Amino acid sequence: MNMPGRIEERQVQQIIDIAGKENTFVQQSQIDDYTHDMADYSATPGLVVRPSSEREVAEIVRVANETGTPILPRGAGSSLTGAAVIEGGIIMDLRRMASVTRVDTVNWYVQVQPGISLEDLNKELKTHGFFFPPDPASSYICTVGGAIAEGSGGLRCVRYGTMKDWVLALRVVLPSGQVVKFGEALSKNRAGYDLVHLMVGSEGTLGIITEAWLKIIPIPSVRTKRFLVTFDNWETTGEVIKRLRSSRILPHLFEFLDRDNVLALNEKLEMHMDEAEATLLVDVEDSEVQTVEDIFRQCGAVKITLARDEEEADAFYQARSMAYLAVKATASGVQVEDVCLPIDKLADYLKMVKQVAAKYGLKIPVNGHAGDGNVHPLILYEKSDEKSRDSANLAYEEICRWAISMGGSVTGEHGVGLQKPKFMREQLEAHDGREALRIMKEIKKIFDPYNIMNPGKYVEIA
Amino acid sequence: MNMPGRIEERQVQQIIDIAGKENTFVQQSQIDDYTHDMADYSATPGLVVRPSSEREVAEIVRVANETGTPILPRGAGSSLTGAAVIEGGIIMDLRRMASVTRVDTVNWYVQVQPGISLEDLNKELKTHGFFFPPDPASSYICTVGGAIAEGSGGLRCVRYGTMKDWVLALRVVLPSGQVVKFGEALSKNRAGYDLVHLMVGSEGTLGIITEAWLKIIPIPSVRTKRFLVTFDNWETTGEVIKRLRSSRILPHLFEFLDRDNVLALNEKLEMHMDEAEATLLVDVEDSEVQTVEDIFRQCGAVKITLARDEEEADAFYQARSMAYLAVKATASGVQVEDVCLPIDKLADYLKMVKQVAAKYGLKIPVNGHAGDGNVHPLILYEKSDEKSRDSANLAYEEICRWAISMGGSVTGEHGVGLQKPKFMREQLEAHDGREALRIMKEIKKIFDPYNIMNPGKYVEIA
Repeated sequence: MNMPGRIEERQVQQIIDIAGKENTFVQQSQIDDYTHDMADYSATPGLVVRPSSEREVAEIVRVANETGTPILPRGAGSSLTGAAVIEGGIIMDLRRMASVTRVDTVNWYVQVQPGISLEDLNKELKTHGFFFPPDPASSYICTVGGAIAEGSGGLRCVRYGTMKDWVLALRVVLPSGQVVKFGEALSKNRAGYDLVHLMVGSEGTLGIITEAWLKIIPIPSVRTKRFLVTFDNWETTGEVIKRLRSSRILPHLFEFLDRDNVLALNEKLEMHMDEAEATLLVDVEDSEVQTVEDIFRQCGAVKITLARDEEEADAFYQARSMAYLAVKATASGVQVEDVCLPIDKLADYLKMVKQVAAKYGLKIPVNGHAGDGNVHPLILYEKSDEKSRDSANLAYEEICRWAISMGGSVTGEHGVGLQKPKFMREQLEAHDGREALRIMKEIKKIFDPYNIMNPGKYVEIA
Repeated sequence: MNMPGRIEERQVQQIIDIAGKENTFVQQSQIDDYTHDMADYSATPGLVVRPSSEREVAEIVRVANETGTPILPRGAGSSLTGAAVIEGGIIMDLRRMASVTRVDTVNWYVQVQPGISLEDLNKELKTHGFFFPPDPASSYICTVGGAIAEGSGGLRCVRYGTMKDWVLALRVVLPSGQVVKFGEALSKNRAGYDLVHLMVGSEGTLGIITEAWLKIIPIPSVRTKRFLVTFDNWETTGEVIKRLRSSRILPHLFEFLDRDNVLALNEKLEMHMDEAEATLLVDVEDSEVQTVEDIFRQCGAVKITLARDEEEADAFYQARSMAYLAVKATASGVQVEDVCLPIDKLADYLKMVKQVAAKYGLKIPVNGHAGDGNVHPLILYEKSDEKSRDSANLAYEEICRWAISMGGSVTGEHGVGLQKPKFMREQLEAHDGREALRIMKEIKKIFDPYNIMNPGKYVEIA
């Protein structure tokens, strides 16, 4: 008898025959690395397989299909929402498929397998004088496939947009095991509805990405300077952005850290940053340096530091990109918030977060991409303390609901996974999107009628 | 008895009650303007209604629903594929809904109704120092709603992308009459599958766009210069692009006209252009002028003219944007081709078109957006001559099939409509997209189960 979702012995053997014994993990010690994501959502898969080709991916999907066994495609597992863990079923680790197939410097695209990290992709592109802009803080490990599936953002989004702005075409293994190409590796293509963008941000629920054609651009010849600027209050951040925008300056980077982040970086990673209320990291072009410095001053900057060389500029960047890990090390539990708001609501947003923290007696350090209204409150709690956990949840809900009421989104770049289906629903309902949710659920059924792709999450349970 | 698709007298009265008698057309003289598109695809609608609000749109859709009457949303009707005409049923002209609701100069978006023309939108934005980049040659009449539904491109695409890169959120009246909002007016939003991009390029088959939130950007402060450059052969065009690209220069405009276009402009619009084999229109930044001029020279330019002032630059632009109308005036019939190819295939493409023209004894002037591999052969024929019509069709097929075989798309920006379902299918099948077409057909059914939205076209008949 077939048990839905169960992996039978004979199937394990079939998968071993396809991918090899050394790439098929069933023992606890082998699958330990796959039992959690970067925000500590945890679940134990029944089997982990590491295919080396699209053909293997398709064959494994067909084996899983026989018993309706759930499948979760996974890269580095750096998701923050539970999208990359699953209880039982098959995790398909795609990191062995990590080749750069083609760098086309005339048509400005790269053809690439899903398992390469964004950092390694950019190392390869650099040798051609090109780069791929989206840069989640996890770029050093997160894979192309994961970043597409999550529709990831990052530090350079403020200027270059998110993953959705950079994907031209995809090869996908559908839940049926059939292989399909969506889109074309062309700058313009109008042949049919846009299925490429349906895949971007689909969180592994519609199919498994086996190849991607991504836009690339030459490394900009324009020279930029990096500022580290401190303020004695965080409300000013919103004002700085507004003034930059009204001066028509679009920074290459506009990042925010509050005091708690800096304290964590100094304590946990032995950095030596000034412990100001607000720290901004801002990249602008050489020709804009003076204007921007004036704006900082007018807004009451305490200290304005222009990175003197690339090394110092890198150190500033590291501070921002390591902030999450530093803060995470200061408490046993953390809920990461990912609200995106109209930029002019940013000051009110930061104020609200601090009020919520005070109300529940929690620490909520905030960092993130202030330049596009997407900052991350990190709600800290004690895992072993039920009251603390409950408070964190209540604080989380309050922040999400406030954002929804202000016309914001509960997720700018982290996605939904297990963490936000409820709030996604509330957002859609509040913003006239009730029918949108119905359509999304129907779309899931078209792609995955037997619901084997990363089930029990996201749209399905919203 | 209900006749599917028929508009009953009582329904006409209901529509008059909703939109007013002056905005409900049933007489031939009133609907004449709605019986063709810009490429002379023609059909006679049963009724034309010009609603003034989303509420009216939704009410009219509900009236149509009772008898399953087909509905076609329409702007200026400047489609080139038959997407904007319908036999029987209701055409909904949305040009009375033409307000700019909000220009947000902090968050850099505009909230706008669908019926405003892109030119009028840009006039309004200009007073705020902003602009909306996509600029189909029909910008002087084509509407925001039409441009979204068609996923239009234009002359500035080479630098700024097409409509799909500029739409943040949409309000849509679904075929059920329900109103829904897709997306958020935010720079980042990951709440659910991307339904906004499904609407972009949906050609009126999924719903009626009643409001749009579009990204805008400040009018660039960087100064550009406009070149008009002639060559004594058109193959060189591809080489110029390749050299610009490998010099990492991304022109603001890179347009192409062959000799036949220039002859038509001189004859029909009394221009006085040099009758060279190839004419390029190229905008580059001040700092790039010297490099670009050198490239032109190295590629054997016959004459390099730098526009001396804005007036002359505008005249150059007009020549390019009026070329289609000028060429169209030289023959009774024209088939517009819209292939998009990898840029390095452009020289082969132009050569192939000329060979096809010779083979069938046709004139096929070519113009278009060489900078992104999307040029438009205009296949001229005599409407009254069956043999000429057949030859045009055969030439058209041959061009499409060649493009497909070279990894191109049969449509870069014009869309599919009635003209290209067959070739879209061939393209998808040749490029591993068979399952994509199946999914598209299923998506159409989710949105429009009774198939009343612009039926008999596009995905449905592919």
